[in-house]
Amino acid sequence: MLEELKKEVCNANLELVRRGVVIYTWGNVSGIDREKGIVIIKPSGVDYSSMSPEDMVAVDLETGKTVEGKWNPSSDTKTHLEIYRNFPDAGGVTHTHSINAIAFAQAGMDIPALGTTHADYFYGGIPCTRALTEDEVKSDYELSTGKVIVETIRERNIEPLAVPGVVVRNHGPFTWGKNADASVYHAVVMENVAEMALKTLLLNPNAEMAQYILDKHYMRKHGPNAYYGQKSGT
Amino acid sequence: MLEELKKEVCNANLELVRRGVVIYTWGNVSGIDREKGIVIIKPSGVDYSSMSPEDMVAVDLETGKTVEGKWNPSSDTKTHLEIYRNFPDAGGVTHTHSINAIAFAQAGMDIPALGTTHADYFYGGIPCTRALTEDEVKSDYELSTGKVIVETIRERNIEPLAVPGVVVRNHGPFTWGKNADASVYHAVVMENVAEMALKTLLLNPNAEMAQYILDKHYMRKHGPNAYYGQKSGT
Amino acid sequence: MLEELKKEVCNANLELVRRGVVIYTWGNVSGIDREKGIVIIKPSGVDYSSMSPEDMVAVDLETGKTVEGKWNPSSDTKTHLEIYRNFPDAGGVTHTHSINAIAFAQAGMDIPALGTTHADYFYGGIPCTRALTEDEVKSDYELSTGKVIVETIRERNIEPLAVPGVVVRNHGPFTWGKNADASVYHAVVMENVAEMALKTLLLNPNAEMAQYILDKHYMRKHGPNAYYGQKSGT
Amino acid sequence: MLEELKKEVCNANLELVRRGVVIYTWGNVSGIDREKGIVIIKPSGVDYSSMSPEDMVAVDLETGKTVEGKWNPSSDTKTHLEIYRNFPDAGGVTHTHSINAIAFAQAGMDIPALGTTHADYFYGGIPCTRALTEDEVKSDYELSTGKVIVETIRERNIEPLAVPGVVVRNHGPFTWGKNADASVYHAVVMENVAEMALKTLLLNPNAEMAQYILDKHYMRKHGPNAYYGQKSGT
Repeated sequence: MLEELKKEVCNANLELVRRGVVIYTWGNVSGIDREKGIVIIKPSGVDYSSMSPEDMVAVDLETGKTVEGKWNPSSDTKTHLEIYRNFPDAGGVTHTHSINAIAFAQAGMDIPALGTTHADYFYGGIPCTRALTEDEVKSDYELSTGKVIVETIRERNIEPLAVPGVVVRNHGPFTWGKNADASVYHAVVMENVAEMALKTLLLNPNAEMAQYILDKHYMRKHGPNAYYGQKSGT
Repeated sequence: MLEELKKEVCNANLELVRRGVVIYTWGNVSGIDREKGIVIIKPSGVDYSSMSPEDMVAVDLETGKTVEGKWNPSSDTKTHLEIYRNFPDAGGVTHTHSINAIAFAQAGMDIPALGTTHADYFYGGIPCTRALTEDEVKSDYELSTGKVIVETIRERNIEPLAVPGVVVRNHGPFTWGKNADASVYHAVVMENVAEMALKTLLLNPNAEMAQYILDKHYMRKHGPNAYYGQKSGT
Repeated sequence: MLEELKKEVCNANLELVRRGVVIYTWGNVSGIDREKGIVIIKPSGVDYSSMSPEDMVAVDLETGKTVEGKWNPSSDTKTHLEIYRNFPDAGGVTHTHSINAIAFAQAGMDIPALGTTHADYFYGGIPCTRALTEDEVKSDYELSTGKVIVETIRERNIEPLAVPGVVVRNHGPFTWGKNADASVYHAVVMENVAEMALKTLLLNPNAEMAQYILDKHYMRKHGPNAYYGQKSGT
Repeated sequence: MLEELKKEVCNANLELVRRGVVIYTWGNVSGIDREKGIVIIKPSGVDYSSMSPEDMVAVDLETGKTVEGKWNPSSDTKTHLEIYRNFPDAGGVTHTHSINAIAFAQAGMDIPALGTTHADYFYGGIPCTRALTEDEVKSDYELSTGKVIVETIRERNIEPLAVPGVVVRNHGPFTWGKNADASVYHAVVMENVAEMALKTLLLNPNAEMAQYILDKHYMRKHGPNAYYGQKSGT
């Protein structure tokens, strides 16, 4: 079932290690088949070095029940599902513990948009969510994590694919994209722009970027008149 | 004698290099056979590149005497033994000179628990010991180092496997775990959370994490109702 | 057409990845044939892992029109051309998103000349350009980027090969050199001296270097009496 | 001539790259045959990737003249020779441009002895020399660099092998040791303890280490009663 998607999701998980944003089992990637309403996700606590497509777990988008797979799905599965249920354009979701993005999550700060590297992929600052309440943590923690991600994106009136990620307060980055690969790509970009932003703030705590530069860079890659890369453009 | 344990301990020592927390001979891992009362430990000053299981040294838990092996045991052996004698659940001990953990040791600061990466493995801040007194340094230095580690964990009423490591003031990290591999794992985690904490404090010197998030994350991996990974859970 | 130059430019682009100053497609190198008035440049958005000399694009120095190649040229092509048109000694141009150089670009600060590593290749501080105006960004962004680079070098009375690079405000480094390889070399040097300078400023915000040390180091490599390396000297 | 020493010096130069303290041609190692009064040193500006023992250059300790070799010797040769002439126990000398050590050189600060990693190899803070005067730079720069190194070690009453290195103000690290390998080892240690010290000072600007810990650690490796490693000890 969904062999192609399993291969893609497995490979996207391994890419996390190759790109240096994950060690051990500290991260997970999923991908969705919207037609079937099935999410393919990494198993929980299984080592990357021995992971293959048949280790991936298939869960139902609505119920969260495992529909295929020999392992438990990632303990963060409910967070992934909540993101898919609320962001209909998300085709893949990634969670990592990359160091510089986590520094912002732990500091309780947005990753500010200070340069064009950021603007090329994130149309504005990358939000840091509020901390979860004690009730939210105790009742259904992973679902609550998904809910606070969705709440953060909605409250700031962000189109989810325009700022495809947040850092969850005291936790770390969750990113998404049109498919599993894109969500990993955004996780790697986020880690890089987080390191750039941290070092920028050490040099100049008042650093900022004009809105029109942000507009320009995001739009030349993603707007209706995009002209970066080889895809048609207008 | 204890060939299996020697293999495990040798491999755990090599893992230190692979994970980037040790260069040259700057670190050591040991493992214990509690029934026999024998500790297997890395030889002193032998290069990792040529190390094999038969180079490991077997020492007596109580007397510290070498009972098998062609080399001197690690110069930190007495520190390891003191940890084993006082923390009965410790099956392995690791010492490294990893850079970010040492920054906290040299600064005389605990590594604060600021996020879930930390909470997944260390149930609270990672203590920095007090400095050794001149007498302690001059009389039996490595034993004194072990004693101050034990004192630190006891004074703070910590269950040793709940916070499986400390940084020794002006020295560096010692970690332990249920076996040699687990103690290495904790050394790698400590280095990562130390870097995260240092960068967090540069962004926000007042960063902190609510106790209930710490509780939740530690318990979902280690409590009686743990549900992370593939082991039975509830 | 210009097969030798294509090979050199392709290889120079791959060198960016090997030296760790570029991930994904985040960078571009070009080289020029001054006699023919043709610039060879990396295609836009094509992955480094599969890039070969025949993927390079040939564009006309004056018109910017593609004269050969199956892909779109780098979206930064107009910036490269503006540099070639104004700095007649530039034989190669490189653009990267290397982290430490970008920290200075985002902070709006020159990379100060604080030591001999810097002085060996850059005869003075590496300028940070002014921010582009809204008009400049909206009308012809990449050309404006080239213009502000040229303006910065001219206003400071710099001989372009003496300080072969700038950081563009809120964007990142552009470097040049006598050929494509040299421009990459300068990009790698800039990233290294940027990291050195950032760390120096964290230790001592008032750090500086005497002008006569700058003179000496630059001149022993580049002056009429240069005596570094194996090339003839005087 | 001196084929064995050439092999050792060549290999020690390559080790600089493997250990990550040098890129391109930014570093040099030499070794001396005290009986013959001949120093073997890396050629100037030759790439590490193609370097072999026969590329090494033999120079006379007293006159500095090349006595064998097809290349010019390193441009820093006079600095090496001055160190050899004044520190009779030095058998090897290394110069690098490693980033964290240079940060201290550029900041004009000693690398303070804050922990046991430092104390294991350097018996006290690693001195930063004074800046060279304009006359010293202009008359015989590389010789002056050697002289200020010697002056710094003498003025502080340091036994050269007890603190086997300095950072030259606005320049970078020079280290020495009983042979070429040992000088490289000290260069790698210096870079590591420099990073540790920098990060420590960011956490706690008042960090320090008691003299008796420094004494103990240095002496357990290097004193008459040393007991680290496999060499006899007492």
